[in-house]
Amino acid sequence: MLKELQNPSQLKRMSYRELEALAAEIRTELIDTVAECGGHLASNLGVVELTLAMHRVFNCPEDKFVFDVGHQCYVHKMLTGRYAQFRTLRKQGGISGFPDADESICDTFVAGHASSAISAALGMARTRDVMHADNSVVALVGDGALTGGMCYEALNDAGQSKTRMIVILNDNEMSISRNVGALSGYLNGLRQSQSYCAFKRTVRRGLEKIPGIGVPVFHFIEKLRDALKSLFIDGKFFEALGFVYIGPIDGHDIKHLCRILNRAKNDKRPVLVHVVTQKGKGYRPAESHPDAFHGVAPFYVESGKARSGGEAGCGEIIAHQLSEMADSDIRISVISAAMPSGTGMQEFQKQHPDRFFDVGIAEEHAVTMAAGMASSGMKPYVAIYSTFMQRAYDQILTDVCRCELPVTFLLDRAGFVGADGKTHQGLFDLSYLRSMPNLILAAPRDVRDLKKLIDLSASVNQPMAIRYPKAGLDLGPRMAAQQPLQVGEWELLSDGSDVMIFAVGSMVQTAMQTAIELMGKRVSAGVVDARFIKPMDKKLLLEKSRNVQLVVTIEENSVLGGFGEGVAAELSATGLHKRVLNLGAPDEFIAHARISQQRRYCGLSVEQISARILETLTSEREGKA
Amino acid sequence: MLKELQNPSQLKRMSYRELEALAAEIRTELIDTVAECGGHLASNLGVVELTLAMHRVFNCPEDKFVFDVGHQCYVHKMLTGRYAQFRTLRKQGGISGFPDADESICDTFVAGHASSAISAALGMARTRDVMHADNSVVALVGDGALTGGMCYEALNDAGQSKTRMIVILNDNEMSISRNVGALSGYLNGLRQSQSYCAFKRTVRRGLEKIPGIGVPVFHFIEKLRDALKSLFIDGKFFEALGFVYIGPIDGHDIKHLCRILNRAKNDKRPVLVHVVTQKGKGYRPAESHPDAFHGVAPFYVESGKARSGGEAGCGEIIAHQLSEMADSDIRISVISAAMPSGTGMQEFQKQHPDRFFDVGIAEEHAVTMAAGMASSGMKPYVAIYSTFMQRAYDQILTDVCRCELPVTFLLDRAGFVGADGKTHQGLFDLSYLRSMPNLILAAPRDVRDLKKLIDLSASVNQPMAIRYPKAGLDLGPRMAAQQPLQVGEWELLSDGSDVMIFAVGSMVQTAMQTAIELMGKRVSAGVVDARFIKPMDKKLLLEKSRNVQLVVTIEENSVLGGFGEGVAAELSATGLHKRVLNLGAPDEFIAHARISQQRRYCGLSVEQISARILETLTSEREGKA
Repeated sequence: MLKELQNPSQLKRMSYRELEALAAEIRTELIDTVAECGGHLASNLGVVELTLAMHRVFNCPEDKFVFDVGHQCYVHKMLTGRYAQFRTLRKQGGISGFPDADESICDTFVAGHASSAISAALGMARTRDVMHADNSVVALVGDGALTGGMCYEALNDAGQSKTRMIVILNDNEMSISRNVGALSGYLNGLRQSQSYCAFKRTVRRGLEKIPGIGVPVFHFIEKLRDALKSLFIDGKFFEALGFVYIGPIDGHDIKHLCRILNRAKNDKRPVLVHVVTQKGKGYRPAESHPDAFHGVAPFYVESGKARSGGEAGCGEIIAHQLSEMADSDIRISVISAAMPSGTGMQEFQKQHPDRFFDVGIAEEHAVTMAAGMASSGMKPYVAIYSTFMQRAYDQILTDVCRCELPVTFLLDRAGFVGADGKTHQGLFDLSYLRSMPNLILAAPRDVRDLKKLIDLSASVNQPMAIRYPKAGLDLGPRMAAQQPLQVGEWELLSDGSDVMIFAVGSMVQTAMQTAIELMGKRVSAGVVDARFIKPMDKKLLLEKSRNVQLVVTIEENSVLGGFGEGVAAELSATGLHKRVLNLGAPDEFIAHARISQQRRYCGLSVEQISARILETLTSEREGKA
Repeated sequence: MLKELQNPSQLKRMSYRELEALAAEIRTELIDTVAECGGHLASNLGVVELTLAMHRVFNCPEDKFVFDVGHQCYVHKMLTGRYAQFRTLRKQGGISGFPDADESICDTFVAGHASSAISAALGMARTRDVMHADNSVVALVGDGALTGGMCYEALNDAGQSKTRMIVILNDNEMSISRNVGALSGYLNGLRQSQSYCAFKRTVRRGLEKIPGIGVPVFHFIEKLRDALKSLFIDGKFFEALGFVYIGPIDGHDIKHLCRILNRAKNDKRPVLVHVVTQKGKGYRPAESHPDAFHGVAPFYVESGKARSGGEAGCGEIIAHQLSEMADSDIRISVISAAMPSGTGMQEFQKQHPDRFFDVGIAEEHAVTMAAGMASSGMKPYVAIYSTFMQRAYDQILTDVCRCELPVTFLLDRAGFVGADGKTHQGLFDLSYLRSMPNLILAAPRDVRDLKKLIDLSASVNQPMAIRYPKAGLDLGPRMAAQQPLQVGEWELLSDGSDVMIFAVGSMVQTAMQTAIELMGKRVSAGVVDARFIKPMDKKLLLEKSRNVQLVVTIEENSVLGGFGEGVAAELSATGLHKRVLNLGAPDEFIAHARISQQRRYCGLSVEQISARILETLTSEREGKA
């Protein structure tokens, strides 16, 4: 059936039985594709019926769907003409794992980070009102995303505006890990009343079989249910925000979903439909461990086991180290924003549950709470992906750096992130952090250095950020004497007389290989590990730049505003008159592909860097001649 | 009485009558000082009794007070040993208009931007729990700040944690302008029940006069009130978030406040105390026009009139222009985050109320809503101060720039902001925006250019940001032929053979004066108006840099990551071997003072710049020799 589906409008002509069969087919396709390509599985399995119902009731693309975060859009992609390409999911040149306006007119809004959908949808609803159009706008939001403050800002504004729009709350009791926050208890209270829904449905189905009697009696029972329900639970929270609350609804009953969505569609007010779904629905391993199947690497369908073994990432290494440090230092605590497992912090969580705080998808709050802790004597570590830390830019600057508080930021997934693509690249953190006063900004080149940086962070009484890549780091050499690191001290790894390469973190190894490659071309290139992006080791920078013809910087970060520009500015301020080649990510958003492909796209392979250096060196020598 | 107050603990020994007299004294001092120094008046007049009650019930600094935003801390400053310095408020070297940990141990947390206090307070409460201490933590939050999502993230986390802490909701029906959002309607519902409080107080006072009878009868009546109240209103919204709700309370009745705060202090759960105050209380002009007396320039106490006349700022000029454009272009809309008057957008609001959206203190939502509007065919302008736009860093990058949507950002208060100081400086926007792909980033040097940039923005189909200073801009020359601006085109204002100065926005005039100053020292300096920070006019940059000995950049922005580094990197990449002097704000937070004093502090006066240039030129010539 999926193959014959060219347009979502075909769903309108299908029977509910056919839709249920289609749902089963979609599930198989989801499981097989994600098993092969990796991606987000559990969340997509949970919204199969819901997405079918949405496309049956509404008219896409006239009616606008906004998928919060966006990783639950796979079913939508299959239903909107992209079934044929679905097996290229997240591959270079293939379809994205998130909505993408370039792929389809049905992808109205391209999300990526959580909690933004209601804002975007309200914008679309307001456009409709200004233009006197009549389309529906539907935001699909997970209950996890409701821990993010943006949702609330948008609900509050939308509720007051009285603009017609629909928010579907997809409540699966999960964000990426188990959901946190008081509101999740509140939603749980609402869910309790689901027994009423189930009761009602059973009765309804029974009655519908008796022609002529079914409908009025059903309506009577529904009224009874509503009266009963209001005695126990209510949607007052959402009503206080100006929304009409409908729910909770069984998110796997297509017929019932269609009926409720039609009711919401015809309401002229802001409506919130509370839908309860099961994450991972229909694939046993994902049903039992939905968090393990949130975002997954390729796996075997039969067992649910990953195809390649997972090594310990930087996060796990840090968690272990912090956990040991915390045994003797009561001040050490760790804060996560809904991703204790994603950031590898589980060991700390397990060892020190009283000092581990998962605040939900609430990066802003996470950072300022850390500031509050640091200002009263704690030593908090905030572990958040580089891309999500963008949400807390102002809090890092205003609440942590301005107050010079000893908060340490652990920026995971810094640099290229591979298959998640444009929305998740960690290519901006050096640019957005480098101008923050009082901040120490560091990137380790290997695990040995990572550990030393964590050691250093413990003794530092000011804000510090440590960024490390998704790809993991080499272990690094075993050294007899473990010299502790000094703030702002770089390391000369090999000297050179023609070119000096200053490399950051994950690019140090590339720089070393480049130097070897260049040696074969009779170019003497030295390498410095510029492990502190801030403060810079100006002494070593000047000393090692003085006698070479070309200075090169390499970083997995936007060249604009990054480390390299800082080097260029520093050298330009002196009378050295050096030519500087800044290598890094270009001024654009880098699409999904393997990390090695993304590096090559940005000219950061050893061969490409060598070629650029040789070329620039030639031009420089000719200019001099 | 104020003079004799050395320590807030003295308040504990005063009678309520004495406290009321003290409140009156404080009000006089507030009015006289703000009339002289400028500052935040209405909000401080509103919290006189509340601050007295807080200091009477709690023990500062063991118990922690966190003032949200912080501009309502004047009374607290007077009560904690800073009365003698109070007349130096907001002056260079004087006390800050915000909490400042360097001033007093009683200033536990230094805020500045709204909605962060509950997060910081929760951090302190968690520290207390880890350390097994016993102090109270109190966050004082305005109802306006509740439109910010961070509050909700923190309430949700705190409510689940069940940690003992107190949030005082200072409800004056205002943020800076009249409050927006559905929740404000909800709070209004709660306030209605205030008649019960008033009734109860009257009865209580009457009964208290009859010895022996008063207390039990009073308790009976109180119970009756609670029963009645629950029929009409309730605190379910806050209860859904896990807080015990107490209120609403009359915020000008010290005795009653003390009683309630004591009750909250003894509760082991998270408690929200809803206090109703009157903004501007006790000063008639501020009571009638609280928004006009939110943040004020020096004024005459008798009339409430400003001492110097206000000219139209950049915001007013833009609002007028957009308003005219919107007459013929239905797509044009304006979005404000709780500051329609602060950003000067009132004319647009008046002329096009259906296309003006004040979303509350919710910058994140504002930006993503604009993205939603732009993605569906509107042309939104988002007017937010440079410092507050920091809150929406991720949304600008991810939701606007990544999707290449035609949203225009109007960044008011870019550069130095004067008396508001460290928390409000607009010295980072060029650094945080410059690395965003697809963004046009511009700064006008005068009003004529500002208007042209607005014209240009209308025809541009991509993200754009225009930054302009608080101090306003010169009108600029009247030109016969009004050439429209081209994206990325700079303007050579005067040529020079020794030095070329590339200046941004407000610094162009300074650069011109510097060139004149240098002429007197026999140095020929040219000036280029680099009005597009991005994209840069690389052709003009190279052409005009080629033949001079020194390139200078000047910007009212952090040197790190700013415009100047971009210039240095661009020139370093060529074989020109130029010396570059980057001038701007140093790598630190710049304290309150007059704007001219702040410029001088950063070495940006004409004399200082000239001296730096001469000095560098000498060093460069000696290096060459």
